[in-house]
Amino acid sequence: MKTMVTLGEILIELNAVTSGPLRHVNYFEKHVAGSEANYCVAFVRLGNNCVYIGRVGRDEFGHNAIEWLRGKGVNVDHVKFDDNPTGIFFVQRDYPVPLHSESIYYRKGSAGSRLSPEDVDENLVRGGDLVHSTGITLAISSSARDSVFKAFSLNGNRSFDTNIRLKLWTPEEARTTIMKLLKDYPVKYLITDVDDSRILVGESDPDRASAILREYAEVVVMKQGPKGASLYHDGGKYFSPGYSVPVEDVTGAGDALGGTFLSLVMSGFSMEKALDYAIVSSTLNVMIRGDQENLPGLSEIEAFLKEMDKK
Amino acid sequence: MKTMVTLGEILIELNAVTSGPLRHVNYFEKHVAGSEANYCVAFVRLGNNCVYIGRVGRDEFGHNAIEWLRGKGVNVDHVKFDDNPTGIFFVQRDYPVPLHSESIYYRKGSAGSRLSPEDVDENLVRGGDLVHSTGITLAISSSARDSVFKAFSLNGNRSFDTNIRLKLWTPEEARTTIMKLLKDYPVKYLITDVDDSRILVGESDPDRASAILREYAEVVVMKQGPKGASLYHDGGKYFSPGYSVPVEDVTGAGDALGGTFLSLVMSGFSMEKALDYAIVSSTLNVMIRGDQENLPGLSEIEAFLKEMDKK
Amino acid sequence: MKTMVTLGEILIELNAVTSGPLRHVNYFEKHVAGSEANYCVAFVRLGNNCVYIGRVGRDEFGHNAIEWLRGKGVNVDHVKFDDNPTGIFFVQRDYPVPLHSESIYYRKGSAGSRLSPEDVDENLVRGGDLVHSTGITLAISSSARDSVFKAFSLNGNRSFDTNIRLKLWTPEEARTTIMKLLKDYPVKYLITDVDDSRILVGESDPDRASAILREYAEVVVMKQGPKGASLYHDGGKYFSPGYSVPVEDVTGAGDALGGTFLSLVMSGFSMEKALDYAIVSSTLNVMIRGDQENLPGLSEIEAFLKEMDKK
Amino acid sequence: MKTMVTLGEILIELNAVTSGPLRHVNYFEKHVAGSEANYCVAFVRLGNNCVYIGRVGRDEFGHNAIEWLRGKGVNVDHVKFDDNPTGIFFVQRDYPVPLHSESIYYRKGSAGSRLSPEDVDENLVRGGDLVHSTGITLAISSSARDSVFKAFSLNGNRSFDTNIRLKLWTPEEARTTIMKLLKDYPVKYLITDVDDSRILVGESDPDRASAILREYAEVVVMKQGPKGASLYHDGGKYFSPGYSVPVEDVTGAGDALGGTFLSLVMSGFSMEKALDYAIVSSTLNVMIRGDQENLPGLSEIEAFLKEMDKK
Amino acid sequence: MKTMVTLGEILIELNAVTSGPLRHVNYFEKHVAGSEANYCVAFVRLGNNCVYIGRVGRDEFGHNAIEWLRGKGVNVDHVKFDDNPTGIFFVQRDYPVPLHSESIYYRKGSAGSRLSPEDVDENLVRGGDLVHSTGITLAISSSARDSVFKAFSLNGNRSFDTNIRLKLWTPEEARTTIMKLLKDYPVKYLITDVDDSRILVGESDPDRASAILREYAEVVVMKQGPKGASLYHDGGKYFSPGYSVPVEDVTGAGDALGGTFLSLVMSGFSMEKALDYAIVSSTLNVMIRGDQENLPGLSEIEAFLKEMDKK
Amino acid sequence: MKTMVTLGEILIELNAVTSGPLRHVNYFEKHVAGSEANYCVAFVRLGNNCVYIGRVGRDEFGHNAIEWLRGKGVNVDHVKFDDNPTGIFFVQRDYPVPLHSESIYYRKGSAGSRLSPEDVDENLVRGGDLVHSTGITLAISSSARDSVFKAFSLNGNRSFDTNIRLKLWTPEEARTTIMKLLKDYPVKYLITDVDDSRILVGESDPDRASAILREYAEVVVMKQGPKGASLYHDGGKYFSPGYSVPVEDVTGAGDALGGTFLSLVMSGFSMEKALDYAIVSSTLNVMIRGDQENLPGLSEIEAFLKEMDKK
Repeated sequence: MKTMVTLGEILIELNAVTSGPLRHVNYFEKHVAGSEANYCVAFVRLGNNCVYIGRVGRDEFGHNAIEWLRGKGVNVDHVKFDDNPTGIFFVQRDYPVPLHSESIYYRKGSAGSRLSPEDVDENLVRGGDLVHSTGITLAISSSARDSVFKAFSLNGNRSFDTNIRLKLWTPEEARTTIMKLLKDYPVKYLITDVDDSRILVGESDPDRASAILREYAEVVVMKQGPKGASLYHDGGKYFSPGYSVPVEDVTGAGDALGGTFLSLVMSGFSMEKALDYAIVSSTLNVMIRGDQENLPGLSEIEAFLKEMDKK
Repeated sequence: MKTMVTLGEILIELNAVTSGPLRHVNYFEKHVAGSEANYCVAFVRLGNNCVYIGRVGRDEFGHNAIEWLRGKGVNVDHVKFDDNPTGIFFVQRDYPVPLHSESIYYRKGSAGSRLSPEDVDENLVRGGDLVHSTGITLAISSSARDSVFKAFSLNGNRSFDTNIRLKLWTPEEARTTIMKLLKDYPVKYLITDVDDSRILVGESDPDRASAILREYAEVVVMKQGPKGASLYHDGGKYFSPGYSVPVEDVTGAGDALGGTFLSLVMSGFSMEKALDYAIVSSTLNVMIRGDQENLPGLSEIEAFLKEMDKK
Repeated sequence: MKTMVTLGEILIELNAVTSGPLRHVNYFEKHVAGSEANYCVAFVRLGNNCVYIGRVGRDEFGHNAIEWLRGKGVNVDHVKFDDNPTGIFFVQRDYPVPLHSESIYYRKGSAGSRLSPEDVDENLVRGGDLVHSTGITLAISSSARDSVFKAFSLNGNRSFDTNIRLKLWTPEEARTTIMKLLKDYPVKYLITDVDDSRILVGESDPDRASAILREYAEVVVMKQGPKGASLYHDGGKYFSPGYSVPVEDVTGAGDALGGTFLSLVMSGFSMEKALDYAIVSSTLNVMIRGDQENLPGLSEIEAFLKEMDKK
Repeated sequence: MKTMVTLGEILIELNAVTSGPLRHVNYFEKHVAGSEANYCVAFVRLGNNCVYIGRVGRDEFGHNAIEWLRGKGVNVDHVKFDDNPTGIFFVQRDYPVPLHSESIYYRKGSAGSRLSPEDVDENLVRGGDLVHSTGITLAISSSARDSVFKAFSLNGNRSFDTNIRLKLWTPEEARTTIMKLLKDYPVKYLITDVDDSRILVGESDPDRASAILREYAEVVVMKQGPKGASLYHDGGKYFSPGYSVPVEDVTGAGDALGGTFLSLVMSGFSMEKALDYAIVSSTLNVMIRGDQENLPGLSEIEAFLKEMDKK
Repeated sequence: MKTMVTLGEILIELNAVTSGPLRHVNYFEKHVAGSEANYCVAFVRLGNNCVYIGRVGRDEFGHNAIEWLRGKGVNVDHVKFDDNPTGIFFVQRDYPVPLHSESIYYRKGSAGSRLSPEDVDENLVRGGDLVHSTGITLAISSSARDSVFKAFSLNGNRSFDTNIRLKLWTPEEARTTIMKLLKDYPVKYLITDVDDSRILVGESDPDRASAILREYAEVVVMKQGPKGASLYHDGGKYFSPGYSVPVEDVTGAGDALGGTFLSLVMSGFSMEKALDYAIVSSTLNVMIRGDQENLPGLSEIEAFLKEMDKK
Repeated sequence: MKTMVTLGEILIELNAVTSGPLRHVNYFEKHVAGSEANYCVAFVRLGNNCVYIGRVGRDEFGHNAIEWLRGKGVNVDHVKFDDNPTGIFFVQRDYPVPLHSESIYYRKGSAGSRLSPEDVDENLVRGGDLVHSTGITLAISSSARDSVFKAFSLNGNRSFDTNIRLKLWTPEEARTTIMKLLKDYPVKYLITDVDDSRILVGESDPDRASAILREYAEVVVMKQGPKGASLYHDGGKYFSPGYSVPVEDVTGAGDALGGTFLSLVMSGFSMEKALDYAIVSSTLNVMIRGDQENLPGLSEIEAFLKEMDKK
């Protein structure tokens, strides 16, 4: 079993029970989310370990997050309780764009944003087989950003998902910070998509963007929404197509893909096969509300693929 | 800002929470509806004013309707309270025809059907930039029908949606009454569809039906369900295609289209662009239960179209 | 097994899922109700037969009513389908009076109100061990009223629940009609309460009202809400106290009491014991939404009483 | 009206309100199900009679099943109450395979599995126009299996749905038992699908499998999931294509098809037309949770087909 | 009709659908709330006008608040849209203290807290018959606090509810600020309770606390939870007892009492009668989730009292 | 921190969303339950450790149980996965006895009932500060019963809750088995109630029953339902009264009491104070559906008691 060390903010998600503008949504459904937490659960679901570094509030939502993740097998022994509130967000679905979701954050000054370099236990990070974070952690606060830089300085086996959220910072800030991170600490696995690539390297063509990004990454996984995802590494390019399914909420689908991919690769799968399997994770993920409930184990992925083969 | 004066019945909609025959539906969700009210809210959502002429019951549902519409910005100062009950209807979804909805009315003798010519304030109607009603108001009672004739006699800027409901009258009654209205008071904007055209002018081909109907209307908008809608006026024909989205309930989609179209045209949009935008309104409308909750403003329509452009 | 023949209107009940004014209730729960139908199900639940005479709409709600009652064991072979809609009503709970419920009817011109003397099969009524109806059936239409008079003329074993609903007629109309029925056709069992007694005989004291009413009835059951109920017959007076339980909806509690009482008396229970048991039925009835779902059988009533004995 | 006599187990279905793995499903919706019960209700819905032979528990779920089926018009006078519990199952939807459902049974030792030859009333079975059962009844217990053999020995007008459930027996057991039944008692109507055919005759090509199976059956209906179904009989082959609709739960769709087909054929429809209509039943069936709520009558099927013709 | 001018923050309330610790609550129900908004709606419900001064976010929740209040008849023309998010709070019910509720705020830096003296239109405030605010507005920000001081300096007809929320400030801060306000600007109506009195004047005995507070207020209304409330003014003391009803959520009950009391007094009711009626408002208020949905009009209060008289 | 080792069956609870007979309950809410699991969570909630010995199915419900308990901090490392299904039960509430609940089990042959002496790790049990089980574990199978006997033979610090469930065994079987266990292995803490005492020692008077039972137990806790509970030990008798609160579901209240009592006593609280606190746990427990969600920590219990002191 391999161990991934992850830095980020765990959030409580309030997902609209009915779609449309939130002003007319009467009921919300609670889930545990946060990109890095999603990665962790996906990673653990495929048979490896994940250690979480971060903070939650000393409140009901903070305990909610910890109990849920511990239940899913994530190592939360290093998560700290902080006096600030646990960050939350609401999900508005299918409005104004059908099949898209919008996040409305209440996370400014949250416990999670207080993640700070002192939380980054050096031995813990050095002992991991992989250290992972995302653009969100870079964006939420300077102390959180510094924490990622510190962690990346401690372990050369790095993974990064660009995950640019324009409600948290400007494209300019995103580009400057992420590119600095990648320059200072080139990664093994870079997970990104065409929209983020346009912001980072001014290029949204998957092939051309990846060519540029591969200067900073051994492996680039380029997500392309429902179409599928491409993989670029020394062994060449590989495209894995998506599956067409009814969409309930796309939030977290990219994390499902990334976490599954990393875990399987760490377990020794070929990257191509890992991506095919990861596409299944993200496919199942969009069929429900909630980011972690539908994350599949190996046998579920294989059951899915076996059924698709029949057709 | 332009002002539309509207005559009709506001209804309370009880929409089936689960689809299938109503005998097996256990829960119903309440919404404010009624074709003309839907038009009004769509019209207001796009930045213009709408004055409503009609009656609701002096009961909880009547207050419900008034508070909701006032909240949405509709001018309800001229709605009267009547001793009869507020009309209601149930929506049965996906049965027996998938993706179709059926309305079961409890509106006979309702407050709304007591709309009468004395409710039609002459100065109010004369002062409007547009006076609007539908075939439903013609059908619900003779006094309501007379009210429409009176209002149409007072203001030459008229709009009419044929909206033939065969649970309210026979095809013969519908044809006679609507065609008399159109002959007596030709309209600027006629919104209709192929089924209604067959009843009214014996022709369901969009082009041929519109050619006949344009004798009574400067502009004909011919709705064609999920396929889209066509526009006919002196400037020629224009077809705007629909978008394929998951359907929850189609009730009110035509009103969304009509109200959005009229409001944008009144605001100075070209009719072609107004129709393209109106199609977005009706597309969003079918994705939820309720007729007015998903009616978009300008920025929402543009966000939708921008996303579609990407694809 | 004894057979009761019942005349009345089966209604579909839309009960507010949350309490408060209906304008703010978003969800409604569907049930089958109607006073005489409630009586029938209670009667059958205690081991006897009930034949229903009435009409429902040729619509989903009508089929709903028939399938439900047939499922509960009521004989619905004589219920006719009518072209008018099945009557419905909404229940508003706890507002403006806590623990009280208000019925909002949509039953004017309903199928059920078309009950007519021609529906009253003479042999069927004559063959019953008891013929039963209520003040509601007298109020809904003249043809329904005539049907009750006809049925009561055919069989001397009569039961009547006054059930005056002031939304259906005036106190004056109620008094005139009910007292005429009782004078023409004195009953064996009269079920009433103090409010109805005040209207009928100008007296709301249970003892004094019953003394007057016993001129028209061998047995008077005087309901007194949560306090309990009194029984008056040649054998003297008997009071059975109520039980204090959390109240969800009181609608139908009186019918539960009446139907249980009649069925047990017909089965040979002493009237005093039958009333004690009937109080249990009405107690369970107020704990849920819906009028018929909680109607208990004999073993449930005895389990209830055994538990109360412990205390 | 024709009468079908059916043997099997009525189950209570607990269907997941949200899709995904059951560990994360918080709410379940209760329905009455069981393949043979589904057949019965479909059969009755199309205007014929169905007599059910089987057992339910002397518990709330058992009464639930009886009241529901009696309400739907099924003859349940011959269903026995048994001291064992009514069998139940949970439905997990869309996981791990989108648009598929998985049944999790709690039926071992259930009341329904105690069906025994003594329950099979000889005159009742002989008097039926058709005697029907499925592979499930063969699998649940030896006494249930013997009951089917006994019933099939009593009446030559037999119908059988293979319905192999690999959670109840092995492929080997299924093949041995079903083929013995078919050899001993060739049937008039055999309803099956390609997966079951592979197990039974080692052939999943519809044409070739049917050719083999027709040695034991006058008519073979070969279900092919959403694609449609084929019919094979002396009059040749006929294929009826499926309709593409949003899928909520596929459980029971095959029974809807089979029950509708048999009822219409018994009513004198051509088998080809019966199959076309049966496809409508199964199409409506997958759009909701619950196996019997959406079963259509003749007028609903025709409304569906009329609407499809328009397109 | 009298006009009250109110300053404060409108909040979106997310009320737990099930009681217990929020970590185990899966669904939340959305309502519009905020103490001053509650006051406004109660005030309007009793037939007077209320003008709201405050800010909401330029987001869905902000529009939600505005549309709802406008629908209820509150004058929201002076509410400004602000770039910060609309404040929200969660309600945890019955845990750890039965029948109590706890508010968990996400309102730091909210749009509402940006209320500033520049928002306080001098003519508007001067023109009101009463200017009202609460301790909450004093606590949320210094600019909001200054706004209250400014408004109170402009109009001598002042009303104030102490409403100390210890999650927003310390007892020391609350005492200092509120007492300064009352010293600088003595009020006509002071609404408070025993807990707040202990903090403000070190005295929780209703009589003694009111004696001290009356130095700063012509009238003191001392709320005492479910027990009722006392009134102190030159005319003496009056105690109005509470009613015992099932409690769903006590949030907002004090505002219901205060708003109803003020509106009726402004309409010319005696203060004693106004308090009796106000107790009804707060009684109905605790029976539901949501702070404004159950606010009664005059006829509802009288129906409540009439029923209580019967008992 | 002290460690309790517990043996028993973890169950999935399907609690009726609406009260009344299950035949009319349409929705069920899922929870993790089982008496010993409830004890464990209560024990952990108060700051100590609990190790669980038992089996769950290799199915979704089994994973559900493990993830939930792990999340709550229970040590589930010794729980085994078994090929049989995870046991479940349904909860029927308020029928036929108000405020009571009835459990309907589907646990015969369940994974949990396969608990066997080989699962009882000797070092684990010897290392615990307390070993605990209940009468339920004795009743579910002979191997489970033997496991309890084995565990009790390994560690003298024993605790036992009689928890007699008459759906699992006869009074005679219960008495014989439990009394043999207590004779062979006298316990430190015996938790029981008056109904169980009547079965075990023919005495339901708390004092007299406890006097007899104290021959087998240093400490007897005698639960008396909503009235409270009594404590008997060498230090004398102590009675702690219950609190009157609205009851949603009483299932699990006794376990809440027992687990809280044991944990606090192990932490060094006086038994009297521990019982007072334990009463708070059981009080909160009856206010919700679910057995473990409302289990309070120390600060919650103290907040509850502080509020009660005010009154």
